[in-house]
Amino acid sequence: MRAIDENTITDAAIEQMSSTRNPRLKEIMAAAVRHLHAFAREVELTPEEWLEGIKFLTATGQMCTAYRQEFVLLSDTMGLSSLVNSLHDKRGTEANTKSSLLGPFYRQDSPTFQLGESIAVKAKGPAIGLYGRVTNTAGEGVPNASIEIWQPDEDGDYDLQKHDPKEMDLRGRFFTDAEGRYYLRTIRPLGYMIPMDGPVGDLIRAQGRHGFRPAHIHFLIGAPGYREVVTALYLAGDDHIDSDTVFGVTDSLVVDIRDKNQDSPFNGIPSIRYDFTLAAAKDGHSGRVGADPSQIVASGQNGKAAIKN
Amino acid sequence: MRAIDENTITDAAIEQMSSTRNPRLKEIMAAAVRHLHAFAREVELTPEEWLEGIKFLTATGQMCTAYRQEFVLLSDTMGLSSLVNSLHDKRGTEANTKSSLLGPFYRQDSPTFQLGESIAVKAKGPAIGLYGRVTNTAGEGVPNASIEIWQPDEDGDYDLQKHDPKEMDLRGRFFTDAEGRYYLRTIRPLGYMIPMDGPVGDLIRAQGRHGFRPAHIHFLIGAPGYREVVTALYLAGDDHIDSDTVFGVTDSLVVDIRDKNQDSPFNGIPSIRYDFTLAAAKDGHSGRVGADPSQIVASGQNGKAAIKN
Repeated sequence: MRAIDENTITDAAIEQMSSTRNPRLKEIMAAAVRHLHAFAREVELTPEEWLEGIKFLTATGQMCTAYRQEFVLLSDTMGLSSLVNSLHDKRGTEANTKSSLLGPFYRQDSPTFQLGESIAVKAKGPAIGLYGRVTNTAGEGVPNASIEIWQPDEDGDYDLQKHDPKEMDLRGRFFTDAEGRYYLRTIRPLGYMIPMDGPVGDLIRAQGRHGFRPAHIHFLIGAPGYREVVTALYLAGDDHIDSDTVFGVTDSLVVDIRDKNQDSPFNGIPSIRYDFTLAAAKDGHSGRVGADPSQIVASGQNGKAAIKN
Repeated sequence: MRAIDENTITDAAIEQMSSTRNPRLKEIMAAAVRHLHAFAREVELTPEEWLEGIKFLTATGQMCTAYRQEFVLLSDTMGLSSLVNSLHDKRGTEANTKSSLLGPFYRQDSPTFQLGESIAVKAKGPAIGLYGRVTNTAGEGVPNASIEIWQPDEDGDYDLQKHDPKEMDLRGRFFTDAEGRYYLRTIRPLGYMIPMDGPVGDLIRAQGRHGFRPAHIHFLIGAPGYREVVTALYLAGDDHIDSDTVFGVTDSLVVDIRDKNQDSPFNGIPSIRYDFTLAAAKDGHSGRVGADPSQIVASGQNGKAAIKN
């Protein structure tokens, strides 16, 4: 009556989960069981290896704080975040700006600036301008679109990695003008190594990977009636532009900093020009492959995940 | 040059991991990436669902303490632990006792008892005897084999779930006599619900599962030159014998408590007779699909997993 073996166990597990009320949760967990079991069978996972995996996942969870999201980093470095972005883009239109990783350093509560202001409050570094338009897929400007921007400093550090992570720098929110234009000042970001002092860093080292991301600036752009875009612009010429540890770079997001852009609103500083294209909202899905770390561990230690019933 | 999409990302990730020095780690991580990506593609995982997954895994890691292993529980309830047991058994012989889950309540440091003594120090409940032999696959007794045993009390609670988890009860270690015989006293265990106050409990409820394990007694048996066996005996007639939440039950491990066993060394109390068969050691693998929770979080919070280079 009960003959559990390496083949029957998969159906037995899916059968026991068949009473799941939410059909999407049921579908996702059944697929998770099938693929997880197929993985274990394929590599013939031993008890010792299984235990190493349990230890690794436990340490990854315990590394997470309101300022550090090690599971997002694991997803990023395994290419899962980039894949979820690509699946999200596929459900949009061909025309809209491609997604890139939100990363673990986004914060919901960044300060609002006026167009033309600089988000570099404390950080020193070579000043650059950043400008362009937010348009719809017909090329028409989207007025009053929200542009959230965040980036590391000239040393490759985000404010969240500083001594007091409550002090914000190099992040801010802008709104486009009546023609959909945006323009702001910042400093030239440096590429950086992902945080290497946790379990994911141990893995990256064991894999002989360099752990670097090419220099980039993050964007989260939205407007009522449009599909939110989470993306980043990558600086051409960076040493790691072809080997991003988290697979965020794609051709259409690589930009140059030019000493003179003909229509630049900035005098005397180099600038990046980039136009973002928003698709009309088709579904309720945001493109946020990631979250403010404080939102994930908001309930503190021993916090519960929100599983929909 | 860089066209990352939902199909090319998998090869890009595996390519970047190809510098892994340990060939087994390389094989396991490449398979993990392939199966993880196949899962995400199959269900077309959305950014919101991905985030729910990150939250769930983070909460699971943060629920773990030296006395509680929520990731083991997740593995158990998804049938992964049982699958790893089955793969382990397949590498042994047909004759040896089947494996069952170590579970999250094993402790390495349980006290040693003399044959015939009772492991029930404080727990009250109907006394039972437990006896039989530890033999090799030729049926010859294995002298001085180590038998570690642990079980819940008459309420279905393990000592680790009590107010002071440092106080041990209903766990102990015995050694077989010159003929491979063992005999000891304990109390009749009750089946129990797995810990439902964490993220895994939320999932089990959302899946409409009862969360119960049938009554059972755990064993870890070993002797020099033999393959370690981690297993459990399940009481016939338990309400949940056919629907164990963690898929540990298999026919050959189901036993009866008999009022009179002809060769019972116990007078006046019911008993279970069971013979365990050990295979000769072929490889260095133990059958411990699980570990003392304190061994997993031994380095405390922000502890690092031990990834072999």
